[in-house]
Amino acid sequence: MAPLSSTIIKNATILSADRANSVIKGDLHIEAGKIAGIYPGGLQELPDGEIITATDCLVCPGFIQSHVHLTQTLFRGLAEDLPLIEWLKQKIFPLEYAHNEQSVWASARLGIAELMLSGTTAILDMGGLKHTQTIFEAAENMNFRLSCGKGMSDYGISPFFESTEKNMQDSVDLANRWHNTKNGLLRYAFAPRFLLSCTPELVKMTVEEARKRACRLHTHAAENAQETKIVEEKFGKGNIEALADLNFIGNDVILAHCIWLNEQEISLLASTNTHVAHCPSTNLKLASGISDVVNLKKAGVNVSLGADGPPCNNRLDQMGEMRQCGLVAKLKHGPVALAAADIFRMATINSARALGIDDKVGSIEVGKDADIVIIKPGLQAEPITDPFTALVYSCLPNDVKDVFIRGQRMVENGHLKLHDRDALVSDARIQQFHLINRLPPSSL
Amino acid sequence: MAPLSSTIIKNATILSADRANSVIKGDLHIEAGKIAGIYPGGLQELPDGEIITATDCLVCPGFIQSHVHLTQTLFRGLAEDLPLIEWLKQKIFPLEYAHNEQSVWASARLGIAELMLSGTTAILDMGGLKHTQTIFEAAENMNFRLSCGKGMSDYGISPFFESTEKNMQDSVDLANRWHNTKNGLLRYAFAPRFLLSCTPELVKMTVEEARKRACRLHTHAAENAQETKIVEEKFGKGNIEALADLNFIGNDVILAHCIWLNEQEISLLASTNTHVAHCPSTNLKLASGISDVVNLKKAGVNVSLGADGPPCNNRLDQMGEMRQCGLVAKLKHGPVALAAADIFRMATINSARALGIDDKVGSIEVGKDADIVIIKPGLQAEPITDPFTALVYSCLPNDVKDVFIRGQRMVENGHLKLHDRDALVSDARIQQFHLINRLPPSSL
Repeated sequence: MAPLSSTIIKNATILSADRANSVIKGDLHIEAGKIAGIYPGGLQELPDGEIITATDCLVCPGFIQSHVHLTQTLFRGLAEDLPLIEWLKQKIFPLEYAHNEQSVWASARLGIAELMLSGTTAILDMGGLKHTQTIFEAAENMNFRLSCGKGMSDYGISPFFESTEKNMQDSVDLANRWHNTKNGLLRYAFAPRFLLSCTPELVKMTVEEARKRACRLHTHAAENAQETKIVEEKFGKGNIEALADLNFIGNDVILAHCIWLNEQEISLLASTNTHVAHCPSTNLKLASGISDVVNLKKAGVNVSLGADGPPCNNRLDQMGEMRQCGLVAKLKHGPVALAAADIFRMATINSARALGIDDKVGSIEVGKDADIVIIKPGLQAEPITDPFTALVYSCLPNDVKDVFIRGQRMVENGHLKLHDRDALVSDARIQQFHLINRLPPSSL
Repeated sequence: MAPLSSTIIKNATILSADRANSVIKGDLHIEAGKIAGIYPGGLQELPDGEIITATDCLVCPGFIQSHVHLTQTLFRGLAEDLPLIEWLKQKIFPLEYAHNEQSVWASARLGIAELMLSGTTAILDMGGLKHTQTIFEAAENMNFRLSCGKGMSDYGISPFFESTEKNMQDSVDLANRWHNTKNGLLRYAFAPRFLLSCTPELVKMTVEEARKRACRLHTHAAENAQETKIVEEKFGKGNIEALADLNFIGNDVILAHCIWLNEQEISLLASTNTHVAHCPSTNLKLASGISDVVNLKKAGVNVSLGADGPPCNNRLDQMGEMRQCGLVAKLKHGPVALAAADIFRMATINSARALGIDDKVGSIEVGKDADIVIIKPGLQAEPITDPFTALVYSCLPNDVKDVFIRGQRMVENGHLKLHDRDALVSDARIQQFHLINRLPPSSL
């Protein structure tokens, strides 16, 4: 009898995202959740196990997104055509505050389903104002690789915040409960929302607690001109410098957006090995600007990719972000700005580095966890020449055929294997209806 | 017996693109290739015919693209990371010149398949340097609604051009053969490539011939800063003003791109009812810039949408262009720049107006030809709130389920109904291989 957990992916074009960014034609062997072997040219004798023939397919590490808001999946389409600060004040904060456990559960599960169906196997999530516990429960229930933390707010631009103590206590409780659980699939990341909704005290306490536990630190920074101006008025310096003063900088820190930076701030990010989460579609949708990814990379900053939230994207697919990343870089820096092969790395191994899980995932290398996506490029990518160009500029989320997380097949031939798609959608619709009914009239 | 050509689409959300941009919940009756009836609330008694249940679906006019290069489908991925002029000189012109009938046939058919599968039912195509006849034959073979003209070049930036006389003779022969054939499905549009590859004499003769036959006129203009600068040096004025001097302006003219315009040129486009074909993804990919669609629309210019060519996009789906159109408009003019409902019109009725076929298609109204697309938004669009927002920002080409052209079902449940997808792909791969072998060494 073949062990149930053994799978051979045959005849694949493997985009490994290893150090040399190797493309390997051959077979891939998954066993007991790990990548057990990579065989250029193919295996001579097939081991026992399920065989998946991947002719004409690209086999990639599962995509990893370094900035997502699962709590906002139910807000899709409810906050259109607003700039960042109004978008937060009028819509997002009131909506997050109106959440209950049932609506967060529906929101997180719908988001995770969308992520898995489009090839994303791990994310760094900014939990909401409420019920972050439920996001972990949803990920646990769906076997999804999640780093997440309560989106903390103890101050600021909206009435929807809580005391510093409550924020810290909730975060510490969640970290104690969830960090490094489910064999490391679930991890806690401390997440003060952004400088305009957090007191310096909260940020400093967060840094201490996170470092005590070797947790990641995650926030938004320099997303928008108006926000950056308010930060400058308040702190007398830019976002990155102000965060650095609070020790919120370094190899364990992921900063989403980083559009409005001066040269000193770029150097500071580079010299401290701070990670940037680039969210190009959201940055266009909220009219925030274009992050200077080319110069960030040139300076040595690790730039990763994420789709951010459904109300500002309005999708969660990493393939769309790869394409958009390439397109806006060309607009900003000319047509040779970023190679497709580099963009692929931003979507995989660079994001794994940002999340601090690159020892386990982010590339296809023997010994790593088998977080794998099999993509069969559609007719719209034909004829295929360079696989990276096809993947970044022509492939679509629906080209994703199979997705494995730690060797477990989550998506099979384009469909969720373990969950009922229609039930997820139906629950999301019902919960969105109730959520809207709980909103204050000023936010409708 | 039910007549074979009668179809009832039941229980649909119809985005009509009529004058009021009405959204109608109800049934749609197609008969003998025409829209025979629209029934808000649904039909009491169903007529004979095939019944398609469209619960949870958006039913739209088939998308119409006002600027495409079918001859370039085989060049997908062969001309990456170059700015416009080098892209043309080093890659596109030599590739077009290396085409033979077999490779144009494969290229056009693959492109038409991609277009139909993603909901586009009509295009204005810029034929290539060679074998434009074959593009018409492919459209005729596939029942596709095509306006097209030989891409003329009698001068200029590359050695790949022909004499003025040859260009005119070929164009006139093609117009005589194809204009308004197949009951109006196929139309000729005279297409000098752009000012830098055509003599003023050719442009003037083209205008005369086109107007004699009531054909559309189609060219590229003000796409790129370098191109616009060369035009200014040569003509002492901008693209639009120089074209106007040659009478290449007016209600029968479609100008692709129109990025580098001054205010006088915007007024000139508006006062002459000249149509603009906006190609936002291509404009990013070739680092050309962002067309100021918001101000063009404000001035009264009819702005339509197109995907341009696979080597500069690298897809042909109008849904991607709608999303990109909204995103870049927001970047340029802030988050309230363009409503999703207006972008939907650009992709349908505005493009029909540009092509001069808005009496027949571009909206769902009784008496018009039944060019219809049925879209079932995927999980990534849920929960759906406003249908225009869902369509423009969340839907994906693969959400297209059924496509009708003049009542004939071309796509059924996401698959080509009348053509063998795998054979199209296989032929494209073979022909691309031979095409590359015919290239001069300098273009490899």
